[in-house]
Amino acid sequence: VRSRCVLQKQVKIKTAAPAWRKEDRADQIYRIAAEIMCQKGYEATSMNDIADAVGLTKAGIYHYIRGKEHLLFEIMTYAMDMVDQDVIKPAKAVADAEERLRTIVSRHSKRILEVGGAVTILLEETSALTPPHRRTVRARKRAYFDLVRETLENLQAEGKLRAVNPTVAAFSLFGQILWISRWYRRDGTVAATDAAQDILEIAVNGVLQPTVGS
Amino acid sequence: VRSRCVLQKQVKIKTAAPAWRKEDRADQIYRIAAEIMCQKGYEATSMNDIADAVGLTKAGIYHYIRGKEHLLFEIMTYAMDMVDQDVIKPAKAVADAEERLRTIVSRHSKRILEVGGAVTILLEETSALTPPHRRTVRARKRAYFDLVRETLENLQAEGKLRAVNPTVAAFSLFGQILWISRWYRRDGTVAATDAAQDILEIAVNGVLQPTVGS
Repeated sequence: VRSRCVLQKQVKIKTAAPAWRKEDRADQIYRIAAEIMCQKGYEATSMNDIADAVGLTKAGIYHYIRGKEHLLFEIMTYAMDMVDQDVIKPAKAVADAEERLRTIVSRHSKRILEVGGAVTILLEETSALTPPHRRTVRARKRAYFDLVRETLENLQAEGKLRAVNPTVAAFSLFGQILWISRWYRRDGTVAATDAAQDILEIAVNGVLQPTVGS
Repeated sequence: VRSRCVLQKQVKIKTAAPAWRKEDRADQIYRIAAEIMCQKGYEATSMNDIADAVGLTKAGIYHYIRGKEHLLFEIMTYAMDMVDQDVIKPAKAVADAEERLRTIVSRHSKRILEVGGAVTILLEETSALTPPHRRTVRARKRAYFDLVRETLENLQAEGKLRAVNPTVAAFSLFGQILWISRWYRRDGTVAATDAAQDILEIAVNGVLQPTVGS
């Protein structure tokens, strides 16, 4: 077991789930495959390992996924789609830069705290992708980074950012948020809602100028 | 090349360095081996890859290191010895908690910014270690974490910590510091000294209550 991969309570799935839509079943496979790849390492994980874990035959799993590299890309796409939907889209709808920053930190932290970090950790495994897949993943990551940095630049223009480089500040925020995937245990002593509140407090105050009386 | 491993300008070492002490030569091997393991992944790196990179024959490299697992443990020990010497020991000599926190953040950030992140990233590969080596590494990491958390608890007792859980705050600080290994490029646009200053500002103000007039 890789120490960088926190063992979460495994989501139990039924081996026979005839009423499930193919998409829901695929989501379950992504999550479980992500946990296994995260624990064993991508290279060391076989399609058999994944089929076993989700309770399918090796033939059965090919109904849902085309192969290991494609599965990795699908997991990353799934993870980034979730971030698009839960973090980026709501954040872009917020006109005020400070509120937009709070939306990003709060929503992204909560996702990792509640959903678990395996898919987040797997997003670093871009070396295993084919070049076109790698370009797609990198472009999407870059677009998200740019949103955070631009938000910090907006805050700078408003005089609300501390005297720091927005690029360094953006990486500092990503470090705090993405590192949750390394340490948070859902069955540990810190409740997800408490952790989310503390991370928001620490991350936002780290980059923003203190306001009078705060 | 793993995206999580930033390609740094390779330290050039001479293949014939007869005047070097064995310890200095070993340090060079650790750094170069760490870069290679970080880029290719630990599993995919062979002793031949390492021998080639440092300009030694496969027989020659066994003069310095006993084998791949032992090399990984040696690299981790080397990395943790450096942190002990450059960060933990100086920090423990500081009685004031706020100054101790600043010492930790500042000294550890500078190490990663100046020395490069490969050895830092390799510290996560504890799964590849033998159980006794793994216990040693984990105990040392834990002791460092406890120092940071205790420092935050001291600050809490002094009324200087924001209203956050010291455990969450400690992980938040580690996230910011350790993430430097993922993004910082020594040949990029941000100077190491500027990045260090910004990271200190962001990290410390994230966890500390604002002081009057700050």
